[in-house]
Amino acid sequence: MISAPPGRVRMDPGTRREQLLALGVRLLSTRSLDELSIEMLAEEAGISRGLLYHYFGNKQDFHRAVVRKAADDLIRVTAPVREGEPLERLATSLDAYVDYVGANYAGYVSLVRGAASGNPDLMQIYDEARAALTDRIFDTAGADGVLSALALEDSPEVRLMVRGWSAMAEDVVIAWVRDHRGVSREDLLTMLAAALPGVLSGTP
Amino acid sequence: MISAPPGRVRMDPGTRREQLLALGVRLLSTRSLDELSIEMLAEEAGISRGLLYHYFGNKQDFHRAVVRKAADDLIRVTAPVREGEPLERLATSLDAYVDYVGANYAGYVSLVRGAASGNPDLMQIYDEARAALTDRIFDTAGADGVLSALALEDSPEVRLMVRGWSAMAEDVVIAWVRDHRGVSREDLLTMLAAALPGVLSGTP
Repeated sequence: MISAPPGRVRMDPGTRREQLLALGVRLLSTRSLDELSIEMLAEEAGISRGLLYHYFGNKQDFHRAVVRKAADDLIRVTAPVREGEPLERLATSLDAYVDYVGANYAGYVSLVRGAASGNPDLMQIYDEARAALTDRIFDTAGADGVLSALALEDSPEVRLMVRGWSAMAEDVVIAWVRDHRGVSREDLLTMLAAALPGVLSGTP
Repeated sequence: MISAPPGRVRMDPGTRREQLLALGVRLLSTRSLDELSIEMLAEEAGISRGLLYHYFGNKQDFHRAVVRKAADDLIRVTAPVREGEPLERLATSLDAYVDYVGANYAGYVSLVRGAASGNPDLMQIYDEARAALTDRIFDTAGADGVLSALALEDSPEVRLMVRGWSAMAEDVVIAWVRDHRGVSREDLLTMLAAALPGVLSGTP
């Protein structure tokens, strides 16, 4: 049995694991997934590698857990507010999304890259996160939703183009965070919000 | 010295290399880059592995050459026609793009994945191809161009959103080729073309 180092408060394993994952995500904000090793996390957390392997199994499981935590964080911090017009709520959510990508650039790029890596586990985490973000557009499809605000009904064509809008937002925000090229944050947000009705304008 | 197999016409090395690359791209249309080995190409071409290594150096150089050839093919087959209104020319180019992705699905996904793999060589090839495709929007920025047809001037904001439109088109076409979900090709093309002015509608 491994005892807690002196001076540390003993925590239950679930809480400790969550804390280690949060540290992993923090480390991922300034480095890629490939650069994030169990050794590095152990050193930063001040615990043994052995204990980390106890929590996360192997490097692949560790990476999967960190990427899933990053995806969960993204979904949580960009959760739309409950008040306001549908398109205002979308703008608030986009605002939080730009903040998140700005604060977690490397980690977010790792999430996107994971999706394209061919690693089925990372692809699945990304697909789920993307679906959770996109489904918000359809979430309140009734009188209160974005779609009805745009006078549109749910259809395969609308789903396809909302997916495309989401891919556009991802690409544009990553490019903007990397290099603003003189584009203001306000203009960025205005353009992204206006692009949703724009992208949907050609749906039958 | 390696002599040509009996019955084969002897070719100059440049032509032979091009022919082998075209075979590589053809093989890539139904399998991922990871699955495309020098051994497989040698077997399909009916020549020795040694001769292939003579042409392509190592596996990494071989993959890079095949992906570059695929990117060049994509740029060539989607070259806009010279006649017609700017937005009609764009529609023709999109039509060819959908054909290309349909006929070369796995190879195209490999190109996109290569971009996200973190492999700097593949990222560069993808970035160049994407830039070549996107620059067409700005190519004839004068009286005859897409931008002036949309009453827009070149700016960092417009560049950013054209880039986003291109990411959207890529994502939507890949998703559509994988599973049409009842969306007709005609509607797909109409929606993608209409999305360009739509995406640009919020630029300042």
